[in-house]
Amino acid sequence: MTTPASAKPNVSLIGLGLMGRPMGLNLLRAGFPLTVWNRTPERAASLVAAGAHLAASPREAAESARVLLTTVSDPPALESVLYGPQGALAGLARGAIYADSSTVSPALARRISADCAARGVRFLDAPVTGGTWGAEKGELLFLVGGEAATLTEIEPVLAAMGKKWFHLGPNGAGQTIKLAMNMILALQVGALAEALALVTAADIPGEKLVGVLQSSMARAPVLDVKAPMLLKGDYTPSFPLRLMHKDLGLALDLANQLGVALPATAASREIYNHVKGSAKEDLDYAAVMKFWKP
Amino acid sequence: MTTPASAKPNVSLIGLGLMGRPMGLNLLRAGFPLTVWNRTPERAASLVAAGAHLAASPREAAESARVLLTTVSDPPALESVLYGPQGALAGLARGAIYADSSTVSPALARRISADCAARGVRFLDAPVTGGTWGAEKGELLFLVGGEAATLTEIEPVLAAMGKKWFHLGPNGAGQTIKLAMNMILALQVGALAEALALVTAADIPGEKLVGVLQSSMARAPVLDVKAPMLLKGDYTPSFPLRLMHKDLGLALDLANQLGVALPATAASREIYNHVKGSAKEDLDYAAVMKFWKP
Amino acid sequence: MTTPASAKPNVSLIGLGLMGRPMGLNLLRAGFPLTVWNRTPERAASLVAAGAHLAASPREAAESARVLLTTVSDPPALESVLYGPQGALAGLARGAIYADSSTVSPALARRISADCAARGVRFLDAPVTGGTWGAEKGELLFLVGGEAATLTEIEPVLAAMGKKWFHLGPNGAGQTIKLAMNMILALQVGALAEALALVTAADIPGEKLVGVLQSSMARAPVLDVKAPMLLKGDYTPSFPLRLMHKDLGLALDLANQLGVALPATAASREIYNHVKGSAKEDLDYAAVMKFWKP
Amino acid sequence: MTTPASAKPNVSLIGLGLMGRPMGLNLLRAGFPLTVWNRTPERAASLVAAGAHLAASPREAAESARVLLTTVSDPPALESVLYGPQGALAGLARGAIYADSSTVSPALARRISADCAARGVRFLDAPVTGGTWGAEKGELLFLVGGEAATLTEIEPVLAAMGKKWFHLGPNGAGQTIKLAMNMILALQVGALAEALALVTAADIPGEKLVGVLQSSMARAPVLDVKAPMLLKGDYTPSFPLRLMHKDLGLALDLANQLGVALPATAASREIYNHVKGSAKEDLDYAAVMKFWKP
Repeated sequence: MTTPASAKPNVSLIGLGLMGRPMGLNLLRAGFPLTVWNRTPERAASLVAAGAHLAASPREAAESARVLLTTVSDPPALESVLYGPQGALAGLARGAIYADSSTVSPALARRISADCAARGVRFLDAPVTGGTWGAEKGELLFLVGGEAATLTEIEPVLAAMGKKWFHLGPNGAGQTIKLAMNMILALQVGALAEALALVTAADIPGEKLVGVLQSSMARAPVLDVKAPMLLKGDYTPSFPLRLMHKDLGLALDLANQLGVALPATAASREIYNHVKGSAKEDLDYAAVMKFWKP
Repeated sequence: MTTPASAKPNVSLIGLGLMGRPMGLNLLRAGFPLTVWNRTPERAASLVAAGAHLAASPREAAESARVLLTTVSDPPALESVLYGPQGALAGLARGAIYADSSTVSPALARRISADCAARGVRFLDAPVTGGTWGAEKGELLFLVGGEAATLTEIEPVLAAMGKKWFHLGPNGAGQTIKLAMNMILALQVGALAEALALVTAADIPGEKLVGVLQSSMARAPVLDVKAPMLLKGDYTPSFPLRLMHKDLGLALDLANQLGVALPATAASREIYNHVKGSAKEDLDYAAVMKFWKP
Repeated sequence: MTTPASAKPNVSLIGLGLMGRPMGLNLLRAGFPLTVWNRTPERAASLVAAGAHLAASPREAAESARVLLTTVSDPPALESVLYGPQGALAGLARGAIYADSSTVSPALARRISADCAARGVRFLDAPVTGGTWGAEKGELLFLVGGEAATLTEIEPVLAAMGKKWFHLGPNGAGQTIKLAMNMILALQVGALAEALALVTAADIPGEKLVGVLQSSMARAPVLDVKAPMLLKGDYTPSFPLRLMHKDLGLALDLANQLGVALPATAASREIYNHVKGSAKEDLDYAAVMKFWKP
Repeated sequence: MTTPASAKPNVSLIGLGLMGRPMGLNLLRAGFPLTVWNRTPERAASLVAAGAHLAASPREAAESARVLLTTVSDPPALESVLYGPQGALAGLARGAIYADSSTVSPALARRISADCAARGVRFLDAPVTGGTWGAEKGELLFLVGGEAATLTEIEPVLAAMGKKWFHLGPNGAGQTIKLAMNMILALQVGALAEALALVTAADIPGEKLVGVLQSSMARAPVLDVKAPMLLKGDYTPSFPLRLMHKDLGLALDLANQLGVALPATAASREIYNHVKGSAKEDLDYAAVMKFWKP
């Protein structure tokens, strides 16, 4: 006997970008009744075709939700969908759960948490790692800050989109770990770029370095994925450089509030910044290589 | 029918530190007649007990060698054993092969190559990666610059100590790739240290970050090995910080000769330098964490 | 015949810290009717004793002003006095002029400008340079963004507090130049600190370096003032490190919005950050030296 | 009664570049019998025309010298004229004084000092600051390491070329202070470049920043000289970028030997390096601006 679909809670999803759309499709596949909203409604087409209901505003999306999810590009976008006109926060019902999978500052996560608590809503910061590939395969990792009991309650929802979730501490802890993880990824790819710049300037093909790398202690899945992009100069965005640059900024903001010096992250952020400043199109963060090979 | 030991060429090994001793033992195990020399002869005891002949000088060690190997700690040490009084270079016979597994500048490798060529000796720069663990297990990687035919000729010798060798280009290419690899390792471990400094300052246990890391795209064998050391503050040297610091300096020297800016490597080198300046004992390079947690 | 005091416009001043108090005293000395407000009203005592009227709220201070001045410590403090409960913005009369001498982001200056324009109020961003010494002597420099005609109109007010004003462009330009100036000051003092760290580690007294410096092309008034502090380790705050650290953050935020890499500023900010993180008291930014001599 | 020229000691000068030639002319004007040598003898023409004797080798120049001066571009050039074939060191007579005004490492200064002492020659490291302008006007500053008595003895010689000399400590101290001074100059000009990059990206003319700078605490003679170059993009070399880059490298080498982290200097060096790597001609170090405005 299977659980009837009607037993599954209503889920609403705000933000239908590279991450949000595949997450929505996986929720539909898992049988969750789904309401969606996006600033540009055209992006909702594939989800509506697959059975999602399109809300007219963030607030309307929130009103029908037992579980609200958001996944937007940056803090201003999140503030806008939550606190702007027809914002989602005012629509959330007492007893609902709201999980934000955007990457924002821990401070904003804590502010949202407080505003939710004042309305009887339980909040989790739940940024994800795994990229568009992970979103499509339903293999995201959720990095969760908030009450453990709340996390337990929405595990069936997360299980539709991801393979694993980590309870990391109180609200803000999910975002803090997410920023720390992205620092590591940015520095790994940045290190490969510096190393490739050095060896190619010394007239050694970059492929030689990558070959050694793949047999070494330094091998990392992110380098397996990005190394061919750096070698070819093909920077089709998977995780856009402008978002990695934003996340490095959030990490440095946090570190500077806490009085923790991050010299290598700061140096790396300026390189990403230099590339962002000169790039005309949207590029993957592997395009950090363009600092040396414009 | 087994190959008689006498068919194996005489090998001499200069430099019996953390790397040289296990390399020598593996050569003996593989049946190579072995002559050794070390600045402090006490370090040769285990090898002599296992059948090695102890030479009285680098020059004497070189004179008996069909294949000479050196593995010393830095460029001045190498210049001393090669060019100093009773130096090895003057002892090498026409037709011998000399492979240096120290990590030095590509410029020094090319200078040695030219001096060897003038004496009818073939030279390979052949630094290794894999650490003391790789040296003990006979699983080193050799990063080789020089003539491919010379490499082919000494493959049986390398096979006694390592599992793989890469022909990377003319003399100097092995050292260049080695420096590039160590930059990547130093920045990976440095990135983990910055990330741990950030999350712990935010009152999240470092173990939480490492747990996420191990399920992520950022996972790397070097981080699997070093993360527990950073968490515990146990910096028993496997690859000493002073050597990593030296290699970052060699990489930056090369980059500054070539006009290639390496901002993140430069930032990271100063952190390693800060720790080196305050450390009283010999520590692993994982001790970069002491910049934040002295 | 002298101009009667009554001919001078009513001025209100919000923010009575190290800069605001001497600025207020100079306004009173010049004969301007002055209303003041400060978050901690005790700080107003000397000004009230000298003839200032103490308002009960920012709004009340603004209501009586023909010219409103603010000089608070950072962007959140400014947002609070302008937009918070009983905030100043709502009190400003149509036709009034508002000049902000705090150091905040150009973006905030432009937002305030737009909000003022909507109320028929003319706004200037007018941060100052010259420190507490300049404030006391009435020798501040005002770095002004906004309409030139508005600047002309309040020149008599500025002349009471400073010796010079620069019209630098539209709103935001004053703040942009201020951030750029503070970057230069922070890097000059930071450079002296690095140089002193180097020579003293080499067993040369820092005084020797400062002696040469004072005869050289590198001599700068800021170094004349700060060098003795660095040599003595006396960091009594004139311009507090936490404010310089904040301004470096604002400069880097602006640069990262504009896509302009600032590698040396970024490196320097992390050093100031490291000191800020470990300092227990309020110190001058000359305390950047504590990175090397805690 | 004037002192007869014959009473003045024979001086020899090796290295006739942008600094050496005007120094030589000033020595001749002051009446010192002068012997000169330069790798490219054509450069000696103006000095020979003014009465100098042209030696055939560094050694020959040294042989006739009561006081030997050298001023060459970098450590390898100095090692070559001292230790190469027909090198100067072998020519120096017991009792002579040798003062080196090149900028090299303190370690090289100490090595030369020891080699001189072994031959009964007194050595001073005496690098100069003041640039070509100072050399021409006879207003150089000499930064001297070595015995105070030796300095006293050659004061009449230095007085012909400079206006001031500082006794800074034992051999090496002059070079250490010189490196520290150049760090400060490089960071001052680099700071101005970052500030100009920021304000111009914000659509404010760089002249506005320079105008404020000149009324401020940050004013410095070096910025008065370099600011117009940065604004115009005119980088006619006075002090070449390749030499400033070399000196930053020597400073960082020293700091890394001493375990003193120099994060801002390291960041700045990489910017100078980036410009050096892409520059086709010889440029002043003010060309650091080309990192932002190629």
